[in-house]
Amino acid sequence: MSDHRMAPVDARASAEPVPVRPVPAHEPPYYAVVFTSVRTDDDSGYGETAERMEDLVRGIPGFLGMDHARTPGGLSVTVGYFRDAAAIEQWRSDAEHRTAQKRGREQWYERYTVHVARVERSHDYEHANGYEDANSRVDGNGSRREPGDG
Amino acid sequence: MSDHRMAPVDARASAEPVPVRPVPAHEPPYYAVVFTSVRTDDDSGYGETAERMEDLVRGIPGFLGMDHARTPGGLSVTVGYFRDAAAIEQWRSDAEHRTAQKRGREQWYERYTVHVARVERSHDYEHANGYEDANSRVDGNGSRREPGDG
Repeated sequence: MSDHRMAPVDARASAEPVPVRPVPAHEPPYYAVVFTSVRTDDDSGYGETAERMEDLVRGIPGFLGMDHARTPGGLSVTVGYFRDAAAIEQWRSDAEHRTAQKRGREQWYERYTVHVARVERSHDYEHANGYEDANSRVDGNGSRREPGDG
Repeated sequence: MSDHRMAPVDARASAEPVPVRPVPAHEPPYYAVVFTSVRTDDDSGYGETAERMEDLVRGIPGFLGMDHARTPGGLSVTVGYFRDAAAIEQWRSDAEHRTAQKRGREQWYERYTVHVARVERSHDYEHANGYEDANSRVDGNGSRREPGDG
């Protein structure tokens, strides 16, 4: 387990520009909620709400981090990571989050898909180190998986 | 189960421009392989290899589709969906894929993380229809989850 796992999730407080980096692998099992969407042309109010939701979800105990990418004019993919199903349930049932979701369906999203998934294994790679840091699931036969999945 | 699930995965053969749409929810359980990466400045050969890998993975029995988004200058998120662990294993052990992964570590990726996760529930939303099409996991107590997760 390397030190970067202990880094604060919200890096915006830092005065230094922070390099983009994916949410690191955590010790399985944990959960990944994959949210893939195509937006409508109406983005009024979207930015403020997205920022507020990000603040809210970071306050959920068991929230591990969030990856987001958006191809201009194309698909948006957001993945939120949670320690367990209870953390997802708390986020799912948050009243302000539900209101935002409703507005999203009415106004911001042309279509979306949500996949709620339990992470069985994961690993990181850093070019500077030249090695993979694996959090591998121990298989039924006791042997660990090789890194390089995906 | 709606008809779009039967659409061919590879839409590039079509002469018509195809609207961007996320890979739809499938009947759980299935697998999502989340690959989050930050690229180096060296992208020589990347495009050809990425295209070749896409062709290859579409030939894997049990491959269900792939979502990809990349924020310019920022994070790239790719999610591949597979029917079962055996399909992932076949993709993972493909010789040409392994060669490409090795080159990726040496040349194209500053850092990346891979999360291999089993999807327990999922749902779609289409604004035009105004409803969510849920593939919900039946919980231990026999009740279905409400849509609106994530």
